[in-house]
Amino acid sequence: MSRAVVVGAGMTDFGPHDQPIEELFADAAFASIDDAGVSLGEIDAFYFGNALGGQAESDTHLAPKLATHIGLQGIPCQRFEDACATSSNAFKHAVQAVEAGIHDVALVGGAERCTPETGLGTGEMTKIFASAAHRQYEQPAGLTFPGVFALLTKRHMHEYGTTEAQLAEVAVKNHHHGQFNPHAHFGKDTTVEAVLDSPIVADPFHLMDCCPFSDGASAVVVVSSDLADNFAGEPVDVTGVGHRTDAIPLADKTSLSATQSARNAAQEAYEQAGIRAENVDFAEVHDCFTGAEVLAIEALGLFEDGSGGAATAEGRTYIDGELPVNPSGGLKSKGHPIGATGTAQIVELTKQLRGTADERQVEGAKTGIAHNLGGDAGTTVVTVMEERA
Amino acid sequence: MSRAVVVGAGMTDFGPHDQPIEELFADAAFASIDDAGVSLGEIDAFYFGNALGGQAESDTHLAPKLATHIGLQGIPCQRFEDACATSSNAFKHAVQAVEAGIHDVALVGGAERCTPETGLGTGEMTKIFASAAHRQYEQPAGLTFPGVFALLTKRHMHEYGTTEAQLAEVAVKNHHHGQFNPHAHFGKDTTVEAVLDSPIVADPFHLMDCCPFSDGASAVVVVSSDLADNFAGEPVDVTGVGHRTDAIPLADKTSLSATQSARNAAQEAYEQAGIRAENVDFAEVHDCFTGAEVLAIEALGLFEDGSGGAATAEGRTYIDGELPVNPSGGLKSKGHPIGATGTAQIVELTKQLRGTADERQVEGAKTGIAHNLGGDAGTTVVTVMEERA
Repeated sequence: MSRAVVVGAGMTDFGPHDQPIEELFADAAFASIDDAGVSLGEIDAFYFGNALGGQAESDTHLAPKLATHIGLQGIPCQRFEDACATSSNAFKHAVQAVEAGIHDVALVGGAERCTPETGLGTGEMTKIFASAAHRQYEQPAGLTFPGVFALLTKRHMHEYGTTEAQLAEVAVKNHHHGQFNPHAHFGKDTTVEAVLDSPIVADPFHLMDCCPFSDGASAVVVVSSDLADNFAGEPVDVTGVGHRTDAIPLADKTSLSATQSARNAAQEAYEQAGIRAENVDFAEVHDCFTGAEVLAIEALGLFEDGSGGAATAEGRTYIDGELPVNPSGGLKSKGHPIGATGTAQIVELTKQLRGTADERQVEGAKTGIAHNLGGDAGTTVVTVMEERA
Repeated sequence: MSRAVVVGAGMTDFGPHDQPIEELFADAAFASIDDAGVSLGEIDAFYFGNALGGQAESDTHLAPKLATHIGLQGIPCQRFEDACATSSNAFKHAVQAVEAGIHDVALVGGAERCTPETGLGTGEMTKIFASAAHRQYEQPAGLTFPGVFALLTKRHMHEYGTTEAQLAEVAVKNHHHGQFNPHAHFGKDTTVEAVLDSPIVADPFHLMDCCPFSDGASAVVVVSSDLADNFAGEPVDVTGVGHRTDAIPLADKTSLSATQSARNAAQEAYEQAGIRAENVDFAEVHDCFTGAEVLAIEALGLFEDGSGGAATAEGRTYIDGELPVNPSGGLKSKGHPIGATGTAQIVELTKQLRGTADERQVEGAKTGIAHNLGGDAGTTVVTVMEERA
């Protein structure tokens, strides 16, 4: 079996955009295509993620629509929706298809419009996104996603003594990283005091514990490793993609703080890659709320259970720390255009492992992982990528 | 490479259902699981299609939700949306994953609620479904899907002289077949006169040229052929799955009457199966409107271009004709729960090729094909299945 490699990566700025989704995605797609040095005629499949286009903008069947806009009509196109894990699941399928020899060159990406540029405010978008919560048991109770992650995080605080100040350190660190990312939605520093002084959204989360909804798009070009030398883009190996789910609703999960799907997905990804958590040089994780990053770095085995908050507060997850987490700024600072987030993590892994992440470069990065969750962590996809051997 | 086989198939009645989508899908899923004789613990992946749940019922991230409801939480689950071709694309991915050795036993299915049981009338649902039309160029013009297929069909009438009476014969034939299908939404005979006397919806289509929106679910169990003997369900071989797209919007297509994506998908599927159109014993095709069946049987190579209407009027596509088309009753009579339609066609192929289709059995059926299109035929998936060698 030939492995899959990423030879091209691109993304738009994350933040408000007034373009139609076709144009927004095209900007990311052509950035990845140009980076790869691939011609349109060589691309033989398109894997696309979008979560909310039907509800937010009456726009579905987007895979062939977007393919048409960028000149790829005719090839197999598919749209995935797995809440916030949408485009990492698209990426998984592209990797599997390339490894199986079904396709040689796949374009993978995601795009979403979530800001008031859609005509919908944050309240309306929050309600739309709550469609990923359980329809009968959770939505009628008013459980939107700040509340979902507040419940998970409160449990972690109860079990391990994690504090609001430790959570705020996640935001401070990710905003610090984000100022070095020219694509970030909120690229400026903040402080623990500013986070704790911001209004409460859902206890224990203050406004500054929450990532924004963003508009944005991201794309990567995945090819068979046998063909990597045919393209201009420096290849980065995809050595593992784990994908697991957990029960929905929350009440059916065996643990709120364990995010079991992440543990199982990480185990699968590490086994595929032949690595252990100790071999990971840096991680992009799904910090939709500060508490989610604490849960993630423990579930991935990067820090012991219960130690994630303290580790963050001790500065161990900064770019120059022992294990950098979210050098891109993460969802918190970079932004979170739902369907674009998964492949944006792959874009960051590609840049870091090529050594082209400029001011936010993790020194000596040879092995990186991406952790992208959907809904209440009902879905998690963990990807391992490595500098080419 | 091991081939994929279907060892279990099940579906609900198509028509109004007052169940939540979890329960609706569970009825189809357990029918297929029981038919296969597989235990839940043996199923290692879930591929799910739903088109409109977010817009119609505020219900997304459905793959792990439905998996949880039937006891499959934990395994990789993914939702596909490719308009009406949603669950055949899910099926394609399951077949590819099984053939590649990624999974051994996959549950594949689709479910949709489209009737007034959702709280939405046909007008509102028609508008929701129009989200699959081009957002900027077609939706603002009021182009809903009866109009889309009216345009395709009018072009065919202009080019080949196809008549409204010939179109009506598609409805008459499919309603005739549907009376033998206990799951059909409208299982009773009709006449050419009744079709032509029904109100015009979008010229040339009368109400009786149009399939209904239905609630319903369908599911199949796909396993590696190496493992087929481990299960009770009689295996049917999946020998080809072709998937191609065409430009969206309509104005960008090179032909309106050719439905080029179907021609390309059929060619791909036939090549994979090592067959030609002449080897096909029967076909399930996507007759969302009567004209769509005429276009489909020509695009699939079953009848010469321009002859599809006449062939239908001559009775050549009845169950006892030379080439039976839609023995299930098709979308027209069986019903069209959008995301469930693709795998419902696979259910029918499975029954026919096992020789268990009762009153609607196609005599001597050894090779069957399914044609499932999405949107304005921007997507088409063609599947070839064969009686086990």
